[in-house]
Amino acid sequence: MARAFVTGAAGFIGSTLVDRLLARGDEVVGWDDLSTGLAEFLDGARGNARFRFVRGDTLDRAGMTAAMAGCDTVFHMAANADVRFGTEHPEKDLKQNTIATFNVLEAMRANGIRRIAFPSTGSVYGEHATIPTPEDAAFPVQTSLYAASKLAGEGLISAYCEGFGFEGWIFRFVSILGERYTHGHVFDFYKKLLANPGVLDVLGDGTQRKSYLYVQDCIDAIFLAMEKARGKVQVLNLGHESYIDVKRSVGWITKALGLAPEIRYGGGARGWIGDNPFIFLDTARIRALGWRPKVSIEDAVIRTLRWLEANRFVLERRR
Amino acid sequence: MARAFVTGAAGFIGSTLVDRLLARGDEVVGWDDLSTGLAEFLDGARGNARFRFVRGDTLDRAGMTAAMAGCDTVFHMAANADVRFGTEHPEKDLKQNTIATFNVLEAMRANGIRRIAFPSTGSVYGEHATIPTPEDAAFPVQTSLYAASKLAGEGLISAYCEGFGFEGWIFRFVSILGERYTHGHVFDFYKKLLANPGVLDVLGDGTQRKSYLYVQDCIDAIFLAMEKARGKVQVLNLGHESYIDVKRSVGWITKALGLAPEIRYGGGARGWIGDNPFIFLDTARIRALGWRPKVSIEDAVIRTLRWLEANRFVLERRR
Repeated sequence: MARAFVTGAAGFIGSTLVDRLLARGDEVVGWDDLSTGLAEFLDGARGNARFRFVRGDTLDRAGMTAAMAGCDTVFHMAANADVRFGTEHPEKDLKQNTIATFNVLEAMRANGIRRIAFPSTGSVYGEHATIPTPEDAAFPVQTSLYAASKLAGEGLISAYCEGFGFEGWIFRFVSILGERYTHGHVFDFYKKLLANPGVLDVLGDGTQRKSYLYVQDCIDAIFLAMEKARGKVQVLNLGHESYIDVKRSVGWITKALGLAPEIRYGGGARGWIGDNPFIFLDTARIRALGWRPKVSIEDAVIRTLRWLEANRFVLERRR
Repeated sequence: MARAFVTGAAGFIGSTLVDRLLARGDEVVGWDDLSTGLAEFLDGARGNARFRFVRGDTLDRAGMTAAMAGCDTVFHMAANADVRFGTEHPEKDLKQNTIATFNVLEAMRANGIRRIAFPSTGSVYGEHATIPTPEDAAFPVQTSLYAASKLAGEGLISAYCEGFGFEGWIFRFVSILGERYTHGHVFDFYKKLLANPGVLDVLGDGTQRKSYLYVQDCIDAIFLAMEKARGKVQVLNLGHESYIDVKRSVGWITKALGLAPEIRYGGGARGWIGDNPFIFLDTARIRALGWRPKVSIEDAVIRTLRWLEANRFVLERRR
């Protein structure tokens, strides 16, 4: 069994991963500074003798190095996930994504740990001409500070694989949905509709197309890839084989809530500066390992929504 | 005329660029901490009333922001150029390349400066399957900390172009040769042969092929691209249309020095971990603007060597 170190352990994907690692019998050290992660997400894990939580910041390299002792695999899930407001605080992506990833790698090196899984993003493809976009598509130009910081993380991990004999799995995600997801359009729409069920303001013109993936499908893919795709550096797109536009998701959400609000579109092809109007990934590489998403995008949207309805406390904890 | 801010102004390419900017009539602020740059390289520039030198570190963002006031274009030439020993001090590339580039961009933003030229490296292509490698070759996997840090810089610049309306020119260089070059194989071989003219130890097996470019040809290309290639982000390979292997350069150097040493090859296809056995760039993009290198690789090697012979003081200033 693995002894896993999970950064961002109290986050959406991080805490779900912790639960899955424990469920399969691993020992897990969870690391989180609880600045955006929610302690409640680890309530289940805390009852497990194989779980240990250490509160700390990825910028505290010495503390993280100490906490990591004895582990053999790192899942570096901590990140600034506030993609949209990158231009309001460019240093956040540099520190919490690029420098944090460097600190994780150095902490691993100090501990002789060589296996790392890293969630990157489909945004690193920028506004790519090739859609669906495969991992080896033409060298892209970055369009957001978030993606640039994730690309920097990818580069660091790859260089550590080459220079220090690390084994790295880099996963380029589409947007992930599911229980505990407290960002993104489902969260925003639900919060707005709670405040005013009669009107829904939507960024962009509603035609922005995106692919989504259910969080448990995402973790299935990570586990499978780490078992079956070996070698220095593995880069794998993770996403659904279909996509939707924002309008469609608005329809599912309002219907599920039994509402018929006036929908007001802000206009423009992008939700915000640096937003990719269309991210759709070619996932042939992970599918070749035998993986398929089990949950449709519609079900992923609805599960996210139902969880928010049942856990309204999170609405108070997010701006 | 432009008012240029040049980081790494006392370095090899930086100081040569300063001289060229002054020669064409620009005003120039040169920024360098003189940690690896040599004050002597700016002796000529110091006599020019349009030149001002400010000693400072790219990690001092506030100081750099103040020094940059009034400029309209930034040439960010400062970098940790110590490519080979990246694994001995991984933090150096992070700080001096990635974080330094972030600081330059933030200093520009604080000053309302939006034009930036940035020397990246052909190493960002990793060990690419496509040779010669064009700018839009398949998304590569990084193999060195140096290249990863340059790629991080590229990503930051592109994101600032998108997010803050910057105009960026990213140049992916092959190895640059010429007067004032105090690293690389010509420098190493000359230094070794001065110490022992009878033997020359060469890293790798001598078959490592590389393309080189003469520094003045490089600056011609930068000036041309900034004049003719406009738009958000321009990515341009700069290199010679030919390449050589290490053995050939050894032959030119020993002949030029009138020596016939025993050549001892260390063996292996790489000079060091992360060394690319073959970097050869497709330069169709810059050539389409009307640029051609004027100096052959052989002449670039010999000019580098002759300058070292005439400026032996630099041998004492480098390890």
